[in-house]
Amino acid sequence: MIKVVVDTLGGDHSPDVNIQGAILALNKIEDLSIILVGDKQVIEEKLLPYTYDKQRLFICHAPEEISSNEVPTIAIKQKTNSSLYQSFELIKSSDDINAMVSIGSTGAIIAGAVLKIGRIPGVKRPGLCPILPTMSSSIVAVCDSGANADCDALQLHQFAIMSSLYLQKAYYVQEPKVALLNVGTEEEKGDLLRKEVHKLLKEDNRINFVGNMESRDLLSGRYDVVVCDGFSGNVLIKSTEGACLEVLKLVKKTFTKNLKTKIGALILKKDMQEVKNFMDYNNYGGAVLLGTKKTIVKSHGSSKATSIFHSIEQAYNMEKRGLREAIEKNLSETR
Amino acid sequence: MIKVVVDTLGGDHSPDVNIQGAILALNKIEDLSIILVGDKQVIEEKLLPYTYDKQRLFICHAPEEISSNEVPTIAIKQKTNSSLYQSFELIKSSDDINAMVSIGSTGAIIAGAVLKIGRIPGVKRPGLCPILPTMSSSIVAVCDSGANADCDALQLHQFAIMSSLYLQKAYYVQEPKVALLNVGTEEEKGDLLRKEVHKLLKEDNRINFVGNMESRDLLSGRYDVVVCDGFSGNVLIKSTEGACLEVLKLVKKTFTKNLKTKIGALILKKDMQEVKNFMDYNNYGGAVLLGTKKTIVKSHGSSKATSIFHSIEQAYNMEKRGLREAIEKNLSETR
Repeated sequence: MIKVVVDTLGGDHSPDVNIQGAILALNKIEDLSIILVGDKQVIEEKLLPYTYDKQRLFICHAPEEISSNEVPTIAIKQKTNSSLYQSFELIKSSDDINAMVSIGSTGAIIAGAVLKIGRIPGVKRPGLCPILPTMSSSIVAVCDSGANADCDALQLHQFAIMSSLYLQKAYYVQEPKVALLNVGTEEEKGDLLRKEVHKLLKEDNRINFVGNMESRDLLSGRYDVVVCDGFSGNVLIKSTEGACLEVLKLVKKTFTKNLKTKIGALILKKDMQEVKNFMDYNNYGGAVLLGTKKTIVKSHGSSKATSIFHSIEQAYNMEKRGLREAIEKNLSETR
Repeated sequence: MIKVVVDTLGGDHSPDVNIQGAILALNKIEDLSIILVGDKQVIEEKLLPYTYDKQRLFICHAPEEISSNEVPTIAIKQKTNSSLYQSFELIKSSDDINAMVSIGSTGAIIAGAVLKIGRIPGVKRPGLCPILPTMSSSIVAVCDSGANADCDALQLHQFAIMSSLYLQKAYYVQEPKVALLNVGTEEEKGDLLRKEVHKLLKEDNRINFVGNMESRDLLSGRYDVVVCDGFSGNVLIKSTEGACLEVLKLVKKTFTKNLKTKIGALILKKDMQEVKNFMDYNNYGGAVLLGTKKTIVKSHGSSKATSIFHSIEQAYNMEKRGLREAIEKNLSETR
């Protein structure tokens, strides 16, 4: 049985989506049990309409919320009655509860992971690794996407190994194609950090390193894993997301311009939904924190139930298929 | 009279677009003269159909091309018969020829600028500064977008001052809103470099510093200048461009899916053209190299004539309105 803690507070639509996502996961995965953390009374009320195996659902009462405006390192230490604090306590103190999913403050989740849970032996710093859809119906993982603004070569090398293992374990990708985010595809391109990392990745036969990637090719589907420092990874993810949304806004504006365009848009409506679906992160899971002693998945703040479900499924796969053990085994060699 | 050198080789559609762009500029701007550099015989033939003031057009024969595959620093030194080499010679050796426009290899242009032209006194490193359209019909300049992969705080501080002056001089933007590319908008966010730069920019009353910008807001229109190191600037520009193009491809695929969608698309065709136009860099100028002793504009490799025209107009404005002098005056204070 895999036990996953689901924080029900934080984000835009909690606790409804968190609870609904948990029920979806319970009803799909047989050897999964879930501990919902939040306001017990509220959770019990919200659970009433659902049918599920009650033997596999538990509730932990912790009604306070850590907001994104609080200083993460302070909040995660002092707000002992918060759902996030208690979620960390649950996975920290039990040997058989090893995974958690939250849509709370990213800063507080990273702070909690580092301060309360700690790193897998051999891991220098955990990396935040979200996944994005590509134009070839595959996915691409980006690590680090923001947990570490300042990075050195060893960290990037470890991100490459960890995220490659992650795609193998959680998404069944065979020999993930690993690329290094850089300003050009030629080997000699980039700053000092990139030159050093390129060499390390090229010489490491544990990963399938395919060379440098320019940021414009992120969604091309030619790469499974993109390795970067947290600063440029954050720029990469947010500018890609931002540009996609801006273009869609522009298209929408055109569609609603006048009667003629509205008629055209009406004809295309159903098919355009597919374009929107493609870019909806709710159809994919959350960002995982790679390299921590327990499995931690951060789902998007505006997640819907499907997104929570996918995040729980991710956490389940990572645990079931031994990702943490695989990381520990592999990283003992890059220290 | 402002004299601008136009390199007619390199890029995808040379020399036709370069020549046509030059004629457009000559016919629009009265106190402009142009020196076309390239294969003299070819240029003369291509000029035949056009009407223009022959007193203001000159040709310099240099028929060789520096390709993007050559090592920039070597090519710019050894290929003495290349159009790019000769373009640099022209602006280097004449006191009254101070600007050039090229669609050639970016690497060779930067190498030539550094090795043959040199920096304005006080400038630590020149920054590459392209402009992008925003959703609010304004433009945004990004500096540095790739000339310097490794940057320090002083360089970023100088990029802020230079690009702010650039927008004032070339685009008549009053008090450009300067932002620092970062992983969050809060003051304390970012890596060590960003924390240092934030302080420098905040204390500098020569610029209108408005704080940190997240990459997703690049096209929002809320900022006129974005300051960054060349590595993350390159990631920012290319991922924004790449994502816009991928979404448009997806929309196009939907439009041509079946008879029904084709009918919808036909109704929207003219209006959708505006979306495409918005993202067409041909409607804007090239990227300028800020901080060099002469004015250097690099137009996109697949530029059409209108883009070359805009690049020449940019170079003209920068010269006419004394951008180089303004940079020298301002930067003598940040050394």
